[in-house]
Amino acid sequence: MTMPLAPVLERIDAQFDQAVDRLCALLRIPSVSTDPAHRSDTQRAARLLTDDLASIGFQAEVHDTPGQPMITAHWPGPASDAAPHILYYGHYDVQPPDPIDMWDSGPFEPTIADGPHGRRLIARGAVDDKGQLMTFIEAFRAWQAVHGELPVKVTVLLEGEEESGSPSLEPFLEANKEALAADVCMISDTGMWDIDTPAITYMLRGLVYVEVALHGPSHDLHSGMYGGAVINPANELTRILGELKDERGVVQIPKFYDDVLELSDAEADQWANLGFDEAAFLASAGLRTPVGEAGRTSIERIWSRPACDINGIWSGYTGQGAKTIIPARATAKLSFRLVPQQDPGKIYDGLVAFLNRRTPPDCRWEIKSHGGSRAVRVGTESPYLEAAMRGLESTFGRKPVLMGCGGSIPVVGSIQRILGFDSLLVGFGLEDDRVHSPNEKFELRCFEMGMKSQAAILSEFAAMPTRRATPPRTTVA
Amino acid sequence: MTMPLAPVLERIDAQFDQAVDRLCALLRIPSVSTDPAHRSDTQRAARLLTDDLASIGFQAEVHDTPGQPMITAHWPGPASDAAPHILYYGHYDVQPPDPIDMWDSGPFEPTIADGPHGRRLIARGAVDDKGQLMTFIEAFRAWQAVHGELPVKVTVLLEGEEESGSPSLEPFLEANKEALAADVCMISDTGMWDIDTPAITYMLRGLVYVEVALHGPSHDLHSGMYGGAVINPANELTRILGELKDERGVVQIPKFYDDVLELSDAEADQWANLGFDEAAFLASAGLRTPVGEAGRTSIERIWSRPACDINGIWSGYTGQGAKTIIPARATAKLSFRLVPQQDPGKIYDGLVAFLNRRTPPDCRWEIKSHGGSRAVRVGTESPYLEAAMRGLESTFGRKPVLMGCGGSIPVVGSIQRILGFDSLLVGFGLEDDRVHSPNEKFELRCFEMGMKSQAAILSEFAAMPTRRATPPRTTVA
Repeated sequence: MTMPLAPVLERIDAQFDQAVDRLCALLRIPSVSTDPAHRSDTQRAARLLTDDLASIGFQAEVHDTPGQPMITAHWPGPASDAAPHILYYGHYDVQPPDPIDMWDSGPFEPTIADGPHGRRLIARGAVDDKGQLMTFIEAFRAWQAVHGELPVKVTVLLEGEEESGSPSLEPFLEANKEALAADVCMISDTGMWDIDTPAITYMLRGLVYVEVALHGPSHDLHSGMYGGAVINPANELTRILGELKDERGVVQIPKFYDDVLELSDAEADQWANLGFDEAAFLASAGLRTPVGEAGRTSIERIWSRPACDINGIWSGYTGQGAKTIIPARATAKLSFRLVPQQDPGKIYDGLVAFLNRRTPPDCRWEIKSHGGSRAVRVGTESPYLEAAMRGLESTFGRKPVLMGCGGSIPVVGSIQRILGFDSLLVGFGLEDDRVHSPNEKFELRCFEMGMKSQAAILSEFAAMPTRRATPPRTTVA
Repeated sequence: MTMPLAPVLERIDAQFDQAVDRLCALLRIPSVSTDPAHRSDTQRAARLLTDDLASIGFQAEVHDTPGQPMITAHWPGPASDAAPHILYYGHYDVQPPDPIDMWDSGPFEPTIADGPHGRRLIARGAVDDKGQLMTFIEAFRAWQAVHGELPVKVTVLLEGEEESGSPSLEPFLEANKEALAADVCMISDTGMWDIDTPAITYMLRGLVYVEVALHGPSHDLHSGMYGGAVINPANELTRILGELKDERGVVQIPKFYDDVLELSDAEADQWANLGFDEAAFLASAGLRTPVGEAGRTSIERIWSRPACDINGIWSGYTGQGAKTIIPARATAKLSFRLVPQQDPGKIYDGLVAFLNRRTPPDCRWEIKSHGGSRAVRVGTESPYLEAAMRGLESTFGRKPVLMGCGGSIPVVGSIQRILGFDSLLVGFGLEDDRVHSPNEKFELRCFEMGMKSQAAILSEFAAMPTRRATPPRTTVA
C-alpha cells in the first residue's frame, strides 16, 4: 500500500506531450450532444474513451441509453478492502460551437497558442469537460504505468448528455446503483481560484424556476377603445413583479429568508481574505456598480445569499413599429437561487401565495414549475475533502480555497439522492476559459497541475487512516 | 334650391336590392391593401368605384400613388355658390381576412344571414368601410336620379391604404389642396349608439406611442454565476413600469394631467343619461369589474380621460422550458391615449424625464418614439354638425347621441392640418360588427338608414342659412 507518488509525477512530466496529443484526439471529435447530426461523433468519442480506459487496465463498457452512450469503467483491484472507493465523474459531450465565425481557429481543430500563463489549448471542450476528465484518466495511466495498479478502488462514469440536460443520467444511476457504489464522487468540472491557487467548490446554490402567466381579457383589445377602463395584464404583471424586491434588494415573499443560514465566522473570515476582485467580476459583465441585497458583499451575494431574477418576460406586441393593443395576457419566467436549508417547495409555495394575494380583478394566474433543486453543501470536515485538500496543497504549494458557486451542478444532487454519497468538486478551469463561448481554452499549465493534483489526491485517498471513519457529509440542504 | 327629400328617400327604398347588389360587387373584390399579392384587386376596386361615380355624373379620376390608388370625384354643379361644399371621405381597402378558417362563409363571398335586427350582410369590408362609403354614394345616386343634381357642392376622396397606415394620404392632401378644398368633411367610418339611435362622434383621443429599452450588462449573464450581485434589466424595467400608475390608477408622470380639461356640465349630464351599458362593455372584453382612474365612470375613462397602457414587453428567454439567464436588456412598447389640450411632445418629454429619474446603476435607456397625435374635438355648436344632427334625427325619429371615441382616426387630424377644415364623423356601424375579425357584418337596416341619413343630411346642408356663417370649429386639441 505504500506506493510512492514521486515517480508517478515524474511519469506525468515525461509523458506530457503524449497526454496533450491524447486530449487533442478527443477534442477533434465534435461530440455535440444536443444535435442529432452529431450522433456518430458522440458514439465515436465514447468508444475512444472506453478503449483508452481499457488500454490502461479498466473493465470499461459503453452503455446505450435513450440518449447518448454512458461509459462505466472499473479498476479491478487489488486495492485492499479498507481502501476508499472513488467514483470519478466527467462528461465527454460539448456545447455546439456556434457562432463558428467568432472562432480564431476551427473549434474542432485543437490549436496551441501562447498566453499570459504560457501555452494554451484552444478548442470546443478544451476545459469543459474533455480536458478536465483527462486529468484523472492521465493520473490513472501514470499510476498504472509506474506501479501496475491504482492505490484505491476506482469507478469511472462518463456521460454524454451534460450539455443537453442529462435526461438519461438519473435513470442510469437508478438502474446501476450497485455498479456505481462508492464512498465519494470526484467531479472535475469547476474552476481554480486563480492560475496559482487551487480550489474546491463546496457550496452550490439551488434553484426554483417558475413560469407565471397572468390572464386578463378574453382576447387582445384595441387600446383606444378600451384603454383606461379595463385591466391590462402587462401593466399588472410588471407592477406585481416590481414588488418582488424592495429598494434594499430584499425579496418580499413572506418567510423567504426563514431558513437562510448566516456564514460561520470562519467562513466569513476566509471569504473576506480571499482577495475577491469585485471590480473584475463586475467588469466581466460590462458593469461597474455592486448592487443587490444591502449590507452584503458581492461574494456573499453570489455564494451564500438567495437571489431572485426575471429570466424572461413577454406580452403583447413585440414586432416592428406600433400596434395599439391591450394584451390578453402577460408571461414571465423567474427563478430563485437557493442556499442551504431553503426548501424549493416552500419557496415555490411562497411565490404562489405572493402572486395570489395580488391577483388583479377578473384575472387568473397560470403557474408552471420548471423544476427545483436544493442547494448543496459539502461538509468541510469530511476526510475525503481533507484528503483532496492535502493533495492539492502538495501539488501547488499553497492551500486550496474553499469556494462557493452561484450556479447549480445537478449531477451532485442526483448522486447524493440516488447513490447516497458526497461529491467533491475539484476542478482546474479559470474564469477566463470562455466556457460555452468561441475560443474556449484550457491552459496547459492547468492541465499539467490538474493531472498531478489528481495523482496526488489518489495518493492521499490511499493514505486515509480508516475507510468510512466518517459517514458522507454532503448536505443536500 | 328647394328640391324635396321625400322622393329621394322613396327612390332609395325602391332601389334597395340594387344597392345591396352594388355593394356585394364591391365586396367580392379582395382589396387587401397590406398584401402586395392583392395589388390588382385594389386597382380593380378603385376602377369599379371610379366608374360608378362617373356613371352618376361625377368627374371621377383614379390617381396613382407610391402605394394604392387614390380616387377623387367632383360633382360638377350647379349648386349655387352659396351652397356648402362637402368633402366625403371613405376607404375601399380592407383588412386581411385571416384567420380564414374562422369564417362561416367566404370573406369575399358576401352572404346574407338573419340576425336579431333582420338581415345582415357578411363579408370582409361589409361595414369597414365599403358598406359605409356606399351609403353616401347611394345617396348621391338617388338625388341625381330624382332631381338630376345634388343640392350642395360635393367632392369625394376614397383612399386604398387606410388599413395599412395611409402612407400616401398626407402627401396626396398636400399635393391636391385646391382640388380637395371644401367647407367640411363627412366621414362614415364610425358607429351608431345602438341599432335605433344614430350618433356623431365628436371627440377622439390622441396618442403617444413609445418604445423603451433598458440596457444593462454587456451580454446575457448566467443567473447562477451572477444572480443577486448584478443589475437585472428585466427586474428593473418591471419595477419602473410598475410605478407608472399608483393604486388609484393615476399616472405618476409629473404634469401629466396639467392640460386635461374636465367635462362641461352639459356633456357630463348628456353622458350620464346615455344609459351606457358598462356590464356589456366589459363583457365584450371577457371582464366584469370596472377598473381605471378612481372616481371616473367607464365612459369617462375611455372618452375623456387619458390612459397609459403597456402594449408589449419582452426580455430574456421566451422559449420553451428554463434558461437561466440575466438578460442584457429589457424592452417595452407603451402608449398614452391623450385628451384635448394634452400636447404629445410634452407627454413624451414627461415620460423620458420619469424614466431618466429612475435609471438603475450602469444602465442606459434607449427610447424610440413611434409617433403621436393630438386629440380631436369637433365644436358641437358647428352649423354643419347641427345640420347633420337634424338629418339624422329626421331619419331615425330620435336625437343622435354625441359620442366620444377612445381611439384615433388619423385622417381627421390630417384634413384639419393640411386642408384646414373640420370633419364630421357620422357612421352607421354597430359595436358587434366584428370589424377586423372573422364574420364581419353590416346590418342591412343600418345600410338602409345610412343611405337615407346621407340623403337627408345633404338636404339639411343645402338648407343651411348662410354658407360660412361660422368658421370651422374643429380643435385639434
